[in-house]
Amino acid sequence: MSRAVTLIYGHPYPARSQAGRVLLDGVRDLPGVEVRSLYDLYPDFDIDVQAEQAALLRADLIVWQCPFYWYGVPALVNLWFEKVLAHGWAYGEGADALSGKTVLWVPTTGGSPSNYSETGVHGHPFDAFVPAISQVARFCGMRWAEPPLVVHAAHRLTHEELRAKAHHYRKRIESLAGEAERG
Amino acid sequence: MSRAVTLIYGHPYPARSQAGRVLLDGVRDLPGVEVRSLYDLYPDFDIDVQAEQAALLRADLIVWQCPFYWYGVPALVNLWFEKVLAHGWAYGEGADALSGKTVLWVPTTGGSPSNYSETGVHGHPFDAFVPAISQVARFCGMRWAEPPLVVHAAHRLTHEELRAKAHHYRKRIESLAGEAERG
Repeated sequence: MSRAVTLIYGHPYPARSQAGRVLLDGVRDLPGVEVRSLYDLYPDFDIDVQAEQAALLRADLIVWQCPFYWYGVPALVNLWFEKVLAHGWAYGEGADALSGKTVLWVPTTGGSPSNYSETGVHGHPFDAFVPAISQVARFCGMRWAEPPLVVHAAHRLTHEELRAKAHHYRKRIESLAGEAERG
Repeated sequence: MSRAVTLIYGHPYPARSQAGRVLLDGVRDLPGVEVRSLYDLYPDFDIDVQAEQAALLRADLIVWQCPFYWYGVPALVNLWFEKVLAHGWAYGEGADALSGKTVLWVPTTGGSPSNYSETGVHGHPFDAFVPAISQVARFCGMRWAEPPLVVHAAHRLTHEELRAKAHHYRKRIESLAGEAERG
């Protein structure tokens, strides 16, 4: 694997999340991986758009790893979508800066899979919440890696279970980066 | 109509949006309506959670009027969800501060209705993006007003067309506030 991976880590309390850290530790040493922890970089929500766009231009594979908040991504990741994926750069007439890159979404949830059903507390299968995220990637001409790597009930997993998820995550990134290389 | 309406206006550039202003002007003089323009109140994203919660407690009907950004609400509205709809207050064991209130979502989009289809540039019917918003209300025990009042291609409407939408908006709020009153 020699292709570049830009991993956008969107946890509001990066130091407090054991799940986020274990998952990240499973992949951050892979060659070509650059981790950008948005809440560490921009605690005041003042995103450096040029730096973020440069990091995306370097990448073949882009990862969005973040807790699943209110049925989507945390607010700073939403702001990152608004500011970084700019009109005239990421989309719009002739704008194709991100075209052909691949996006993998890695949400960690607080609920068990059974909470995500018509009769569960979240009223819908998890898949119902995917289009609002996948379409962000697709509208910018990026490829959406199916399926997202969803880690449910992340804070209730044992360390062993988390490490297994991290291993799966590592394999997934290796595989997607390999595809990007062949692609 | 004598019930209280708290209208959360989430436009990042409130002064620049003609559509947002015409719609708002159609309803802001209704008795009991309180407009809270989040980007005017919190340009630094530093939300006064107590003030926002107090405004919600006063309301029978809550309106979320905002442009449709990246298939959801703008980032400050997402942050408002995270901070204001807090665990132990809006949801969680015994928390029912918002229970039984009604939410009306009023998104304004940049695209025409035909963009929202499987073959359109947004890849999905608009309805595919609703669960991530409606479920926020429902998870807090609130009633979701069906259907959302969607104003498509808002910036391309004539002043006349916008005024007609604003009139419809006014009637909708009067009707929903009346329902809340009858309880």
